[in-house]
Amino acid sequence: MSYTTFEDGHISSPTGFRATGVSCGLKEGSKARDLALIYSTHPCTVAAMFTTSATPAAPVFLSQAILSRNREAVRAVLINSGQANAGTGQVGLTDAIECAKLVADELEIQRDAVLLMSTGLIGVPLPMAKVRDGVRRAVSELDSGGGKRAAVAIMTTDSRPKERVYRVQLREGHRVTLAGITKGTRMIHPQLATLLCLMTTDVAIDARLLTRALQQSAGRSFNRLSLDGDTSPNDSVYLMANGAAEGPRITDASSWEFGAFQEALDNLCADLSQQIVRDAAGSGKIIQVTVRGATSDENARLVAQAVARSSTLRYAVRRGLTDWGALLAAVGSSGAELRPELIELRVGPIVLMQEGVPVGFDPAVAMPIFSSPEIEFLVDLHLGPVETRVWTCTWHEE
Amino acid sequence: MSYTTFEDGHISSPTGFRATGVSCGLKEGSKARDLALIYSTHPCTVAAMFTTSATPAAPVFLSQAILSRNREAVRAVLINSGQANAGTGQVGLTDAIECAKLVADELEIQRDAVLLMSTGLIGVPLPMAKVRDGVRRAVSELDSGGGKRAAVAIMTTDSRPKERVYRVQLREGHRVTLAGITKGTRMIHPQLATLLCLMTTDVAIDARLLTRALQQSAGRSFNRLSLDGDTSPNDSVYLMANGAAEGPRITDASSWEFGAFQEALDNLCADLSQQIVRDAAGSGKIIQVTVRGATSDENARLVAQAVARSSTLRYAVRRGLTDWGALLAAVGSSGAELRPELIELRVGPIVLMQEGVPVGFDPAVAMPIFSSPEIEFLVDLHLGPVETRVWTCTWHEE
Repeated sequence: MSYTTFEDGHISSPTGFRATGVSCGLKEGSKARDLALIYSTHPCTVAAMFTTSATPAAPVFLSQAILSRNREAVRAVLINSGQANAGTGQVGLTDAIECAKLVADELEIQRDAVLLMSTGLIGVPLPMAKVRDGVRRAVSELDSGGGKRAAVAIMTTDSRPKERVYRVQLREGHRVTLAGITKGTRMIHPQLATLLCLMTTDVAIDARLLTRALQQSAGRSFNRLSLDGDTSPNDSVYLMANGAAEGPRITDASSWEFGAFQEALDNLCADLSQQIVRDAAGSGKIIQVTVRGATSDENARLVAQAVARSSTLRYAVRRGLTDWGALLAAVGSSGAELRPELIELRVGPIVLMQEGVPVGFDPAVAMPIFSSPEIEFLVDLHLGPVETRVWTCTWHEE
Repeated sequence: MSYTTFEDGHISSPTGFRATGVSCGLKEGSKARDLALIYSTHPCTVAAMFTTSATPAAPVFLSQAILSRNREAVRAVLINSGQANAGTGQVGLTDAIECAKLVADELEIQRDAVLLMSTGLIGVPLPMAKVRDGVRRAVSELDSGGGKRAAVAIMTTDSRPKERVYRVQLREGHRVTLAGITKGTRMIHPQLATLLCLMTTDVAIDARLLTRALQQSAGRSFNRLSLDGDTSPNDSVYLMANGAAEGPRITDASSWEFGAFQEALDNLCADLSQQIVRDAAGSGKIIQVTVRGATSDENARLVAQAVARSSTLRYAVRRGLTDWGALLAAVGSSGAELRPELIELRVGPIVLMQEGVPVGFDPAVAMPIFSSPEIEFLVDLHLGPVETRVWTCTWHEE
């Protein structure tokens, strides 16, 4: 298998996709693009993951309903920024239904072939007059070269668009393209995706395998971001496969082709999620937390998230303090199964604690590591075989 | 029942208590008092609550062991600031045992009559030579008027000592005194006490009733603080009752005397915990979160803590933004049982959402409320009878 980054690629680079992003005045006082439309000339198989919030936004609610009936013939995704259409009650749901209808009517496709995503202020209704006008213009501007406009239109607090495209040679003569756009800098905490991400590919693949691939890739990337501990009601990740590339359909999880596709998707999700961390950090610091030696996924996750969320540790990291006690405190209060006398803690290459006992370190060696813009903590519980890793960041104004 | 604040009171105001706080150089580069000793001329019945951390500090470990054998004849508590004696392995436990022995030998009391508390840096051993010298001086300076020195000696990041004393008339001729000192501004999050607090009283009371009273009072006060989401390995709350006041022993939970004692203790714990919030807030803001209409204590607590911990909401509060969407997002992602279409949200007197639908508010009326130094959020789930309340605060540098 070989895959290459397609440097000038965008979300409509895979065969058969069209995209655009227009400005229709959804962001108050701004002429920025705020409405993205992605369309496929072929019906798409779709895999999706959604927020676990008990108060999901209207577009999440509607898209879940559509996917429960139609996961094999989706044609378009409409994404607006400016208003999240969350906490908007029955009006929000009525507006979401009208959004899907507008896109379907303009594109002359089925209503249940349209998915939605929204991001922006919560509790504010969509300005539907502006959306109606925007959808019409977006449909008229759809273009196979329009993907970069879509990447811009989904931004909110993001400082830059986030996109990545890979071309993958699955077999001789069987080349597919995978593309993704994403947005998010705040309210990023599992479960689940805790951001908006749309990925397109022209591979032909069974829905069951597509879902399996997305769950693995998102589980190792988006679900391992814990930026501020907050979960948004709008978090959605869609992966659309339209089968427009030449080559056989992937139907076997043990096939070479599926393995190659999975690896490319793993890398695409990892790349997009790292773009989010890096943009969120801004002038702050990036923190990577690796947990080893846990007895279960749940225990590994509890420890990793406790460390990532610790205000006291974040305070120390922000100031480059060598005071690592908050790391131990976070591990101890994580709720995970552990034995204090086995705990090993490291920052970068420096051992802080071994078998539950502090290891003295040379401050002159430690200072540059604690002061670095990217800091890596390792917690080894020495109890079991399970490992996980999460990423978080500090903000300069935190 | 009548009780009055004893304005010049301190931790050794209840009959039979002696206290002091000395400086023995535990805080590097400081001559501040750092070692407090509290002693009772009569054996004390003790109720206690401890951190839920899986890596408790050595003084917590030792004090738990002592209390498992002796809850009726405790005589002294030694509290040091500067080093937490947490994450110090076997050396830390050996040091803690020596601390208790030093106090017992100097005071000529049993070794298992001494409890410990420590607060300060994690992972750093106690400088025992300084502690040995300090204990000797502290014992020689014990004084019934020395309580204010003890309140100062337990401070770390606190900007001021925190103490309160009440005198309570339980019956004609049966007057008792309750006193408390506490410390803490960071790492304050249930469960449990998430700070150090020592309370003394001269009432005579059964151990079972004393524990019951402390659990209720701490549950409504210290356990409802969630300042930064972090739990310390050192959190401890001790309540010592030496029975030195005149009057009958409290042995009946349904008695007038127990009710009056409970009410005074409720007020003492509430007062001390509010002193912590106010000191922690400094130039930041105090946030009170009330949750009503939950189906269970657990659900009420989940919602209240999710709101208190929401980074996005804290960011908005800090800046006085009327963007309340993060409040809804926190409720929705709390994991509590809820029905979106029933949710009511308020800030101060302003209704933000009713029956799951946003209620428009006048920005001119709302701005002063969102900008105020103390802000009150109300979440009514309208599902059940359970109510709870928590307090948190923002920091100016957050």
